Amino acid sequence: MKSTDPITRLVSAFTKLPGVGERTASRLAFFILNQPDEIANELAQALVEVKEKVGLCERCCNLTDERLCSVCQSQRRDHSVICVVENTPDLRAIENTGEFTGSYHVLHGLISPLEGIGPDDVHIRELLKRLESPAANGDAAVDEIIIATSPSVDGEATSLYLSKLIKPLGIRVSRIASGVPIGSELEYTDKSTLSRALMERRDL
Amino acid sequence: MKSTDPITRLVSAFTKLPGVGERTASRLAFFILNQPDEIANELAQALVEVKEKVGLCERCCNLTDERLCSVCQSQRRDHSVICVVENTPDLRAIENTGEFTGSYHVLHGLISPLEGIGPDDVHIRELLKRLESPAANGDAAVDEIIIATSPSVDGEATSLYLSKLIKPLGIRVSRIASGVPIGSELEYTDKSTLSRALMERRDL
Repeated sequence: MKSTDPITRLVSAFTKLPGVGERTASRLAFFILNQPDEIANELAQALVEVKEKVGLCERCCNLTDERLCSVCQSQRRDHSVICVVENTPDLRAIENTGEFTGSYHVLHGLISPLEGIGPDDVHIRELLKRLESPAANGDAAVDEIIIATSPSVDGEATSLYLSKLIKPLGIRVSRIASGVPIGSELEYTDKSTLSRALMERRDL
Repeated sequence: MKSTDPITRLVSAFTKLPGVGERTASRLAFFILNQPDEIANELAQALVEVKEKVGLCERCCNLTDERLCSVCQSQRRDHSVICVVENTPDLRAIENTGEFTGSYHVLHGLISPLEGIGPDDVHIRELLKRLESPAANGDAAVDEIIIATSPSVDGEATSLYLSKLIKPLGIRVSRIASGVPIGSELEYTDKSTLSRALMERRDL
């Protein structure tokens, strides 16, 4: 087969997706070929549309196809509490708990001195604007910032940076708890998680 | 989020692919969103193109974007030997061995009485036409048919049916060997493979 035939091109386009190797790509391509046209057309259209229509929410930088995302638009959310997350999948994970009724701010990255990613490379400036002017936050003054970045080196660095920046504004800054995951076995919990859980123990 | 927003639509289009669950689909969608437009556009274009341009080879029913597939077009292949396969991935698997220099015939299915798939539902008629008229086989008379369907119930049924149909035409019909796979441990070989290997033992 020539390397430019449509099947080979489709296989090679599939291999660009994460976790898709040559074998999976080829299986997906033959699946597409064996299915009615709609499957291929729907996926093709969704791919083009998502890139054309989805952008950042003007207020919280969440991904949305409107000017404001659905959380920022909602009257039932508490816009005085902002949960800061690294990216949209993290936002969705928190939404899925059903526990959080505040609004979000999506950084789209973490500060990483090692990789040369500074505060200006993530959407921190937009967060500060929300804190400084109620108008930029839909007329709601902010009472608390919950920093929900991962407990990784970059996540901690970002958390520290934000906390130093925001605390002087007189706003409460909190950090999600780290510790032993619910349902896990203590025996199999890694050392750093366990020592963190000991360090951050709570009085009962 | 509304169920009709572009991200949700892309996630749901991805879940229609085999082996892609909600989580993987969501990971793929956010990957697409974070990448330059080309990744999405290339995949979208390849999806549409493959459905528009790829059809069956007029002679062997292989998938191709031309009138004849590259194997049927080739002057260096032996068109007097036809290897019958279930589908294009099987054809590719045999091509990848580099051992076969004949041509192919792709059935696009197997006879399966249990699932109500009869001889007319797979491309057997096209094969018979090639055997009966050299013109339909690029002016080459057929000397041998190698049946390379899987050693499954349907694969064996198809093989038996073809052999009964073709042998009376005075054409040699052979079947790929079944037995213990190269490099495998006898201890872990399943019973039916092992008894087949014993039954079909060869003199040394």
